[in-house]
Amino acid sequence: MAQELKIGTLAVIGVGLIGGSFALGLRKAGVVERVLGVGRRPETLEQARELGIIDEAVSSRQAAEQADLIMVAAPVCAFESVFRELADHLSDRVVITDGGSTKGNVVSAARATLGNRIGQFVPAHPMAGSHMFGPQAAYADLYRNRNVIVCPLEENAQDTVSYVESAWRTCGARLHRLDVHQHDEVVAAISHLPHWLASLYVLQVARDVNADVDFKMAGAGFADFSRIAQGSEEMWRDIFVANRPAMLHQIDSLHALLSEAKDALAKGDFDWIEQMLRESAERRRQWEQERS
Amino acid sequence: MAQELKIGTLAVIGVGLIGGSFALGLRKAGVVERVLGVGRRPETLEQARELGIIDEAVSSRQAAEQADLIMVAAPVCAFESVFRELADHLSDRVVITDGGSTKGNVVSAARATLGNRIGQFVPAHPMAGSHMFGPQAAYADLYRNRNVIVCPLEENAQDTVSYVESAWRTCGARLHRLDVHQHDEVVAAISHLPHWLASLYVLQVARDVNADVDFKMAGAGFADFSRIAQGSEEMWRDIFVANRPAMLHQIDSLHALLSEAKDALAKGDFDWIEQMLRESAERRRQWEQERS
Repeated sequence: MAQELKIGTLAVIGVGLIGGSFALGLRKAGVVERVLGVGRRPETLEQARELGIIDEAVSSRQAAEQADLIMVAAPVCAFESVFRELADHLSDRVVITDGGSTKGNVVSAARATLGNRIGQFVPAHPMAGSHMFGPQAAYADLYRNRNVIVCPLEENAQDTVSYVESAWRTCGARLHRLDVHQHDEVVAAISHLPHWLASLYVLQVARDVNADVDFKMAGAGFADFSRIAQGSEEMWRDIFVANRPAMLHQIDSLHALLSEAKDALAKGDFDWIEQMLRESAERRRQWEQERS
Repeated sequence: MAQELKIGTLAVIGVGLIGGSFALGLRKAGVVERVLGVGRRPETLEQARELGIIDEAVSSRQAAEQADLIMVAAPVCAFESVFRELADHLSDRVVITDGGSTKGNVVSAARATLGNRIGQFVPAHPMAGSHMFGPQAAYADLYRNRNVIVCPLEENAQDTVSYVESAWRTCGARLHRLDVHQHDEVVAAISHLPHWLASLYVLQVARDVNADVDFKMAGAGFADFSRIAQGSEEMWRDIFVANRPAMLHQIDSLHALLSEAKDALAKGDFDWIEQMLRESAERRRQWEQERS
């Protein structure tokens, strides 16, 4: 039960939107006694302390030794070095979870570094992105009613998984379980591929001979369709690199469909086009209904 | 000056969102004495009369003979038959404009049917789409602060163009002029291509092996990116058919960029990816700022 969760010391590696909101959510629920923060930039840690996100800035080693729960909220390409700094100092009791958007590469990094502590790591992905970042963007209710995908490892004890799920549930999250491979395919399909397409689409418009007029005339449909392209380029590069196999799989599949559609348009197969539009519109409307 | 505009009799062919809002906008401004409505379905015309959009339902012939201004708000593939019904009965004084999303095919249809009346037709495209349709969706302020692209023909007298622009301006629109070819390329780039991509993307997700999980996990980014895919399949099929040359041109250009991006990802050229993401994100953020 979420109500019975008690965390003595929480350590957050990365005290921005994702890590900071996790700490604030657990603090608000009154289940955590002390929050330690780890990060590269002293001013960010100080800001997190002033905002009441953490009680104290510490080293990775101190976090590994003192914490009951560690939440790693690092860029997805930084996990290996984060784990490496923790690995030699982890206590028997500490449990680790994370907030990374990709799981295959994070689990590989964990296996490469954590050794026989691997069972103490329960990978998770909170589906709660934002254009905002940093400690000032963090808030206790970020995860309320948001989906969090937990990807238990075969080395995880049942209790360890339950403990991590209980922490996320205490933040208000809706929990789901997927295996690592399926997780990466699912997020490639519903999150990474749209970002890829929106970004390339905006680039095409920017390079169009009519670019100035295009942007001047662009309206509400353009705004919605391309909104996600504003995300952080560093974060998204890392995500594409980290989730490359699933991305390439999704891209191949989409390119085949795009070619088929282009051929239909070129040869005037308007029935194909209407059929495609109907199937797509009906599925999207159904999703809208199920969601609300 | 918009204030000086006086329209004796307005005829609207198609009394739904686009045509109905045009009539209501001019009525609200007090510049029109009488509004005639033409349409295929008697119940829709009756509904428009009850809603105060039109005063009377008439035939195409009556509209052609009696109106000072005709606004054609028909599906883009229906213009040729609409014009054909009007052509033989048009008075010397009547001016025609339209609300079609494509212009090349509409102008071709006009040239094929209107004969020496071609100079009385001033093509226009109000950029004010919606998922809503029918007379009940129409409202006087639909065009307020929305872009309307006017595509004057070389046969149009200056006064004729001014009269049409004045009517649109009276509805609150921001006016722009483009030639027909450039109009079709611009709307392909900023409106039709996003719809095409969003629809094919949703279809790919619907056919994914993980489709059920995909839709369950999909969040705010997915929602925004795919919202436009809910549009009417008949209307959008017609638009793709009507704007085929510009669409194929835009599609070819996008496919080349998509291939380049896929190659960069496949071979691990992460600098290319970051560069692409940066250029795109900066341009999109700039657009957001200019817009607000």
